Amino acid sequence: MTGIFHLAVRVYWEDTDAGGIVYYANYLKYLERTRTEWLRSLGLEQQLLRTQTGGMFVVSAVHIKYHRPARLDDPLQVSAYVQKKGAASLLMAQQIHRITPSADPQLLCDATVRIGWVDGDTLRPIKMPPVVLEKIGNVG
Amino acid sequence: MTGIFHLAVRVYWEDTDAGGIVYYANYLKYLERTRTEWLRSLGLEQQLLRTQTGGMFVVSAVHIKYHRPARLDDPLQVSAYVQKKGAASLLMAQQIHRITPSADPQLLCDATVRIGWVDGDTLRPIKMPPVVLEKIGNVG
Amino acid sequence: MTGIFHLAVRVYWEDTDAGGIVYYANYLKYLERTRTEWLRSLGLEQQLLRTQTGGMFVVSAVHIKYHRPARLDDPLQVSAYVQKKGAASLLMAQQIHRITPSADPQLLCDATVRIGWVDGDTLRPIKMPPVVLEKIGNVG
Amino acid sequence: MTGIFHLAVRVYWEDTDAGGIVYYANYLKYLERTRTEWLRSLGLEQQLLRTQTGGMFVVSAVHIKYHRPARLDDPLQVSAYVQKKGAASLLMAQQIHRITPSADPQLLCDATVRIGWVDGDTLRPIKMPPVVLEKIGNVG
Repeated sequence: MTGIFHLAVRVYWEDTDAGGIVYYANYLKYLERTRTEWLRSLGLEQQLLRTQTGGMFVVSAVHIKYHRPARLDDPLQVSAYVQKKGAASLLMAQQIHRITPSADPQLLCDATVRIGWVDGDTLRPIKMPPVVLEKIGNVG
Repeated sequence: MTGIFHLAVRVYWEDTDAGGIVYYANYLKYLERTRTEWLRSLGLEQQLLRTQTGGMFVVSAVHIKYHRPARLDDPLQVSAYVQKKGAASLLMAQQIHRITPSADPQLLCDATVRIGWVDGDTLRPIKMPPVVLEKIGNVG
Repeated sequence: MTGIFHLAVRVYWEDTDAGGIVYYANYLKYLERTRTEWLRSLGLEQQLLRTQTGGMFVVSAVHIKYHRPARLDDPLQVSAYVQKKGAASLLMAQQIHRITPSADPQLLCDATVRIGWVDGDTLRPIKMPPVVLEKIGNVG
Repeated sequence: MTGIFHLAVRVYWEDTDAGGIVYYANYLKYLERTRTEWLRSLGLEQQLLRTQTGGMFVVSAVHIKYHRPARLDDPLQVSAYVQKKGAASLLMAQQIHRITPSADPQLLCDATVRIGWVDGDTLRPIKMPPVVLEKIGNVG
């Protein structure tokens, strides 16, 4: 069984826009980095998986709510948690908080992300290989 | 009353990832370009609006489903449509299709995007100024 | 012989940063889109070339000077010109201007970009295939 | 006097393109993150500097050579070093290496980046404030 995984992320110039805040699409990059590091923490390197199994993860749906904006230099903490596990897909719950030394972390975004396992060439959904299923473990 | 607005978009190297397809966050850029061009088509330039009214649009929620991937060089058509209009926010329905000369357009993504009008400094929600409300017009 | 190719580009939120101007790396995206459209104008589709010849272009060096910044909503014109043509590489001269209805275009950036033709798998430099050399034509 | 500053960077999906390698503009993001962390290591937070002094750094020129490509999941090390220090600008030498457990680091890119200090509103070059000059220290 896997618990909640956390990754620290810093806001750089590249992430912000002329509104002075992080551009709305770039929070999805933080979410993806966190899912990638969560997989790596389980021993699953995606480049290697692609070579060994011919498959890869792709995102099939995202639902994200933006509660407060992040700004340049903000230290963030991003979480990832498997909410539901199927034979060919995962439903991940993810949150982004701003870490403030003097106060409680502030929730900036929360999201659910559905990722499916596909054949790397045809991009059609297929069952996750045993090595992936085993390392992700039981959920709930 | 405004109808469905369309923007043609091309997939470039910058949009793709090592999976050979458009990176999932980058579809949100296409959606935003289309909302921006829709506003421009109504006579609403966002940089100018910011200077004149002190306010700006920010995205407060996105729900997107990815049906088929886009690939390098694909010609896309992105739509934007106001589904619901409030005093301080809009709910937009948006779709991305691939244009294929020899066949019907293929639906790649569909999304609903909630955008709110905020004070540019405090980022707190405020009512949209009359000029914005009028130009968007009636919905439905 | 090929002349100077031009592409119109618009600045969107995604391109800007918290400084209120286009993020410095994003000008390189405009340069690449322009090289891609220049190739397409010659009948060279890169995705197709990769499938047919196994090769692709990669950038081996960029020299860019930033003279004036671009801002949100700016209409830009980007140029591309083959300065030098070798058997396995091209040296491109590129400029970015802001188009102002009431005044002369303003030079924002100028760049030289060296692109080489490589094997798509090994990424080692190889000679450009005849179809590419012919379509690019004579230079100077 | 400041020495060579290093930052560890990981290659994520967002950084790569359909060629299977890091998109050429994205190396400039790695370079910028490293300059930002170098400034932070000297006690210079850019968002705070902007508020306190009204000024900010902008890049005025980049010269970058791409020797070998980075790929998904690669662990990189990026360096930053002040090569020359003027009253209103800095010339930085920067390199990107891939870290390989079993072998010497491989040089992927080397770059020189000229950054100037400008007024945040007019974007005109002005002298760096004493706090910035002092913290950067002597060079050479």
